[in-house]
Amino acid sequence: MLKAKIYVKLKASVLDPQGKAVTNSLHNLGFTDVLETRISKYIEMNFTSDDREKVSQEVEYICNSLLANPNTEVYQYEIVPLEQNLEN
Amino acid sequence: MLKAKIYVKLKASVLDPQGKAVTNSLHNLGFTDVLETRISKYIEMNFTSDDREKVSQEVEYICNSLLANPNTEVYQYEIVPLEQNLEN
Repeated sequence: MLKAKIYVKLKASVLDPQGKAVTNSLHNLGFTDVLETRISKYIEMNFTSDDREKVSQEVEYICNSLLANPNTEVYQYEIVPLEQNLEN
Repeated sequence: MLKAKIYVKLKASVLDPQGKAVTNSLHNLGFTDVLETRISKYIEMNFTSDDREKVSQEVEYICNSLLANPNTEVYQYEIVPLEQNLEN
């Protein structure tokens, strides 16, 4: 079994209002050394398949068609063996 | 300058309805080898400080007080040098 670790991030050129709000809150709390915050999605997807090539193609398709907005977001991923006992 | 890479995940015992919805959608689309999907937050926070110990303490405090809900979520993080040219 395989696990896809998928990051869906806003493009660098796109404003992240949620991250900006966190940065402002932290400045108000006194954490003035926080320069910037960017908030992204991190998705772990487990597959019954052991075929990396097939899973990789599926993840590409899933990111393009479901998880990421190609206008504003970019994605990256890695495929790793699913080690059930080490995850929580 | 340092970058904190922070993951805020639902506890393994907590149902992830958004992830469940994605899994169901994928099954309907024919991706029947998708076993489970868990959706988490991935936060990159840049600090002007170069003091790893100080930044680490700040990140702990920020996670506990702002980013994670201790009832339902767990967090993990790593502190790395901020390499501006390699990030997008």
